[in-house]
Amino acid sequence: MNGNHSLLEAFNQTTYPLVGHGKRNIQILKDALDDTDGNLDSDMYGAGKLIKEFQNRIAQYLGKESAVFFPSGTMAQQIALRIWCDKKGLKKVAYHPLCHLEIHEEDGLKELHQIEPILLADTSRPVQLEDVLSMNEDISCLLLELPQREIGGQLPDYSELEAISAYCLEKGIKLHLDGARLFEILPYYQKSAAEICKLFDSVYVSFYKGIGGIAGAILAGDDAFTKESKVWKRRHGGDLISLYPYIISADYYFTQRLPKMGQYYEEAKELAGLYNQCHAVVTKPPEPVSNMFHVHIDLPKEKLEAILIHIYEATAIGLTSYLRESSETACSFEVNIGDRYAHVPKVGIIKAFQMLDERIKETSGLH
Amino acid sequence: MNGNHSLLEAFNQTTYPLVGHGKRNIQILKDALDDTDGNLDSDMYGAGKLIKEFQNRIAQYLGKESAVFFPSGTMAQQIALRIWCDKKGLKKVAYHPLCHLEIHEEDGLKELHQIEPILLADTSRPVQLEDVLSMNEDISCLLLELPQREIGGQLPDYSELEAISAYCLEKGIKLHLDGARLFEILPYYQKSAAEICKLFDSVYVSFYKGIGGIAGAILAGDDAFTKESKVWKRRHGGDLISLYPYIISADYYFTQRLPKMGQYYEEAKELAGLYNQCHAVVTKPPEPVSNMFHVHIDLPKEKLEAILIHIYEATAIGLTSYLRESSETACSFEVNIGDRYAHVPKVGIIKAFQMLDERIKETSGLH
Repeated sequence: MNGNHSLLEAFNQTTYPLVGHGKRNIQILKDALDDTDGNLDSDMYGAGKLIKEFQNRIAQYLGKESAVFFPSGTMAQQIALRIWCDKKGLKKVAYHPLCHLEIHEEDGLKELHQIEPILLADTSRPVQLEDVLSMNEDISCLLLELPQREIGGQLPDYSELEAISAYCLEKGIKLHLDGARLFEILPYYQKSAAEICKLFDSVYVSFYKGIGGIAGAILAGDDAFTKESKVWKRRHGGDLISLYPYIISADYYFTQRLPKMGQYYEEAKELAGLYNQCHAVVTKPPEPVSNMFHVHIDLPKEKLEAILIHIYEATAIGLTSYLRESSETACSFEVNIGDRYAHVPKVGIIKAFQMLDERIKETSGLH
Repeated sequence: MNGNHSLLEAFNQTTYPLVGHGKRNIQILKDALDDTDGNLDSDMYGAGKLIKEFQNRIAQYLGKESAVFFPSGTMAQQIALRIWCDKKGLKKVAYHPLCHLEIHEEDGLKELHQIEPILLADTSRPVQLEDVLSMNEDISCLLLELPQREIGGQLPDYSELEAISAYCLEKGIKLHLDGARLFEILPYYQKSAAEICKLFDSVYVSFYKGIGGIAGAILAGDDAFTKESKVWKRRHGGDLISLYPYIISADYYFTQRLPKMGQYYEEAKELAGLYNQCHAVVTKPPEPVSNMFHVHIDLPKEKLEAILIHIYEATAIGLTSYLRESSETACSFEVNIGDRYAHVPKVGIIKAFQMLDERIKETSGLH
């Protein structure tokens, strides 16, 4: 049996997985709908009370003039960059080399919009003002992802953000926020979403990461921008007759989980601390700045899998459902804290991490 | 008060609307979900049992190698045409001047794919072989919409379809079916979906017209085609983490309503007959070939609105919720037969049409 498959199976059988909100099953939608009157009218191609009220709610929360609900962030962000490129008449943007648009979208930005991206910073750290200053080319838009997911959810200092924003404003460069995990970083920055969004011309947020909805995104900005985004939404095939299954669940879980972002953040720091106490284990970042971090362990994948499966069976605690092979002697995985963590008995967690530390030492030949 | 608004209000207050399946409210989704176990896992970016089983079900039904679920037909069809254009290395297609891509998609095909459409036939009739033969330019793909919705849902003869298909095959032109209402025309053609789809290289079908689901579409063809369509689906931002709200409802209502397409067709013919007996009223087509038709009435919009509101109040029967102004002295509207028609007392329908005929005559000064 394939290693990752048996790891996933063992993880799925644990009573106490440490990551996520829960299983991604259709009960998530049923719960949101149980709360909603069946007589409520569907949205219709972007119109109707249901979609408008939610768009207004999020626009207000983000401190933007208006907002548009999209089926996906992929669609919303390509469109945001396209609008800013068209406005300036220059099809060039800049973003981090591990930006979602660069590595997860099959080059939609290039294939559908013929927009050329300039890659800023190296893959180990977030974009800084210095990277922007040292660009040799003019661009229409700079995209910043907060936190930078693919490197464990790292953030620049807030003052760095302010400096980048001021520079872009001065140079006539639009600043776009990939806020897929914006809600999750507010406790670290100790800022409101509106305070952060004020630094950006346009903002995308997601409703199925920390919020735990089904799918869907919001793109927010000034009225002219969001109006144009609706035209592109139709062109992309995203102006569905009904988006309400996503909107209703986004609204429901936003209400439920937004107040818990501080809790997830504290729990992420606690859990990262436990990982970092283990031999041959480090987290990225060393101290999380959101509900997420990456774990890097210096052991070959097969050996670590065997250790983890043993721990899951012995403690009923699930640490991760998968491992990514970084090299022949190291692997990594992502941790996202959600509702589950708070329900896990602390004594079980302590035991699991004692076992992890001991087994890694044994396997590394330290015992 | 705006005329159309009060007509809509009066229509919404009738006990017996003649068109559609019912209100587009969220109960439609609740009903589909009530039938489904909450423990069922979500689809994940196009993978998982839930999406695969439905795709297989529809691929088999359409007689195609494979099928891909899309959030919208707009997305699915642009992608189909793009794939065929790329394959031939020629960004030219042909379709009817009232094709959905030409009039309802904000020129997505041109703006996102740089594909140039050649418009065939005039706006009063469907595309015929003769139109294809008389094209002066080579194209990669011909799109046929069956039935042609914007002209009341008209169809070419089946033999015409066969001839077009044979010609395209001979000339190396891919034939794509806009089957937004494919299920609805099977009773007229007396063919299976697979028999019709055999004439086409690729097929799109929709699940919220006659089927009455929430949203969503299937694109079907051979394996190489559908595989490539998934890459473009991601580029368009349509590869959502979860599409299950649409898939579950598509599956549920497909099972429920596919067997009723013959009934809707018969009822459409009956209702069109009643319209055609009225003074100054004609339907397009004169005899429906699906569950739909258009009604054209030679009266100014304001006058017809007053008549309709009066009929709705007097009989509790609702004929249409809106009127489109064709000229200063004529208007039209679309009729789609769904579940509702069968539940309306015949005597009420007869009375409503007697009133319509009388009032039109009175207003036209014939009494």
